[in-house]
Amino acid sequence: MPSNEEEMVVTPWTVSGKIDYSRLIEEFGTQPLTDDILKRIEKHAGQLHLQLRRGLFFSHRDLDWILDLYEADRRFVLYTGRGPSGPVHIGHLVPWIFTKHLQDIFGSKLYFQMTDDEKFLIHPEFNLETPTRFAYDNALDVIAAGFDPAKTKIIMDVESAGTLYKIAVKIAKRITFSTVKASFGFTDSSNIGIIFFPAIQAVPCFLETELTGENVPCLIPAAIDQDPYWRVARDVAPKLGYFKPAQIHCKFLPGLGKGGKMSASLPETCIFTTDTPEDAEKKIKNAFTGGKPTVEEQRRLGADPTICPIYYYEYYLFEEDDKKLKETFDKCKSGCLLCGEHKAKLAEKVQRFLKDHQKKREKAKNVLDEFLYKSN
Amino acid sequence: MPSNEEEMVVTPWTVSGKIDYSRLIEEFGTQPLTDDILKRIEKHAGQLHLQLRRGLFFSHRDLDWILDLYEADRRFVLYTGRGPSGPVHIGHLVPWIFTKHLQDIFGSKLYFQMTDDEKFLIHPEFNLETPTRFAYDNALDVIAAGFDPAKTKIIMDVESAGTLYKIAVKIAKRITFSTVKASFGFTDSSNIGIIFFPAIQAVPCFLETELTGENVPCLIPAAIDQDPYWRVARDVAPKLGYFKPAQIHCKFLPGLGKGGKMSASLPETCIFTTDTPEDAEKKIKNAFTGGKPTVEEQRRLGADPTICPIYYYEYYLFEEDDKKLKETFDKCKSGCLLCGEHKAKLAEKVQRFLKDHQKKREKAKNVLDEFLYKSN
Repeated sequence: MPSNEEEMVVTPWTVSGKIDYSRLIEEFGTQPLTDDILKRIEKHAGQLHLQLRRGLFFSHRDLDWILDLYEADRRFVLYTGRGPSGPVHIGHLVPWIFTKHLQDIFGSKLYFQMTDDEKFLIHPEFNLETPTRFAYDNALDVIAAGFDPAKTKIIMDVESAGTLYKIAVKIAKRITFSTVKASFGFTDSSNIGIIFFPAIQAVPCFLETELTGENVPCLIPAAIDQDPYWRVARDVAPKLGYFKPAQIHCKFLPGLGKGGKMSASLPETCIFTTDTPEDAEKKIKNAFTGGKPTVEEQRRLGADPTICPIYYYEYYLFEEDDKKLKETFDKCKSGCLLCGEHKAKLAEKVQRFLKDHQKKREKAKNVLDEFLYKSN
Repeated sequence: MPSNEEEMVVTPWTVSGKIDYSRLIEEFGTQPLTDDILKRIEKHAGQLHLQLRRGLFFSHRDLDWILDLYEADRRFVLYTGRGPSGPVHIGHLVPWIFTKHLQDIFGSKLYFQMTDDEKFLIHPEFNLETPTRFAYDNALDVIAAGFDPAKTKIIMDVESAGTLYKIAVKIAKRITFSTVKASFGFTDSSNIGIIFFPAIQAVPCFLETELTGENVPCLIPAAIDQDPYWRVARDVAPKLGYFKPAQIHCKFLPGLGKGGKMSASLPETCIFTTDTPEDAEKKIKNAFTGGKPTVEEQRRLGADPTICPIYYYEYYLFEEDDKKLKETFDKCKSGCLLCGEHKAKLAEKVQRFLKDHQKKREKAKNVLDEFLYKSN
């Protein structure tokens, strides 16, 4: 019997234990990303994005159908989002980088939802201003990710309620308490705001259709933990005459500690987008690795990159070149590359990335207003 | 054991059986309107409104406290509303007439809520446009009731969600599913929209406080069936630093049939504000009365005004003069007044009332926009 520490839990509010992604595909009833689908995407993209090549995005629902439509000259919109409960870290950027890539290749409009209402409703200590403040702050990171200003709208939930509520009540009318109890683990002690919230999170799936009167399909790139929301949205869609939203699911970026996804609640294991170069370097230097206790031992036995966050960051984000990545893997495994050296190399890449991101983040302040969805 | 027909049920969605108002005071835990409170109101009003003199308003919560504050030069706001699921009938007008009276004597601002969202969420067959259309139609009746345009705002729920949702999430965070289950009889099969709705109905209790930053008390004149909403709102208020909303509760106007409150679902027993003079007359002529089967019998034994809607309409709405009312009562009881004569007399009064109301209703179209609360 697995210990509590190892038991896998993946819900929109808790991700813990050792994540078995194949089991998630089975349990959530999603589809694995097949070679056939990857080839179809490659045809449109020119080459496969690193996050697809390396299996960071690994599962989907109806992505083949979205591609069918696209190839038949039908447009679709993209939808992703963020629960603004704190500053953004590089783990959050992973699906945004991929979403920007999808926007580039398919020319799609993107709705990006900031769920300040959700974060207020689930954090007992938050007043409403706290997540809303984070929402505006985090939006700078979204913009810095490089989305097309002409095709991207950031929806601030509380500020946009004038539009969202009108559509949410239509969705909510079709969802019973039984359903959200089963899908999200709500109980009699759950507050009635968070019970209603799945209807709010479903709205952007159908927003383009509602606003234009044209039935526009929607593709959601997001981490797999958000899947219960889309299952509920998919159940409701046909009852309202909307298309079911399609999804493409990604894995979690690990934190700098031993195991577990990167989480702002453990700031020392997180690289925040606003970290100074010194902070980032220090956190990387203190990171857990797959290395051995002594240099001598590591030279002799090699290290284990498959459990090492330093290697994962190269793999998922910072080493685009597959050949170089393979070299790093081999050197690590053979004991040629010591953890200190690898950390220094990664720290340099991260610092370069942060410097660039922070510059874009600063510029984003000038265009934030253009990116905001304006509710009527 | 009482039959189903007789069993008293009073919830926001069902009022049936023989209503025992003393029992409601006890069950709902409200206070009876005492002579002391009536005297205090009389002092401010000059004379007691017929609906107070005759006990149509019969129960309250914290009305004495509202009067204390008013007498200490503190302002308070009024709040009442309507669930727009059909056309307005004269039963709906009863609390509005009284609310206008309160606005006249206390100079209070009024928030009038049109719960088009609620009616959409509870009527399986409604699309969202149906209750919203009724809301705008019913607003003409509200305006025709004579409220001060400078002091009255009609809140269309769906249209005003931009403001309402922001406040509703604060309220919702403090209300569990257990609470609404106990207060409204929600079950696992209830939809998540109606589960959230009590937070929306609570908003106008606190709207003036939210909008002005000044803690402004609120008095709600409404039929007693709405009480569960205010109980929930009162529980939450102190947790959010608001005053608990005070209430003054009225009884239900009976329909023209035998027993039961006037209900639009039985249109033949309803006098709608848009009825033609002929329709109104016809419905009154067909009404149930407290009369005897034959003229002879009635002359000999007299009729029973205490079970007669014709008499009730005089009592509650159409006979301001207590002396004349007493005469009618005595004549009816002694057999001097036959039901046909009384019906003709009432029909004439109702026709006069409708003619006047419909004229005001027509004029209301020109000022509707001024009365609407404009959400940000």
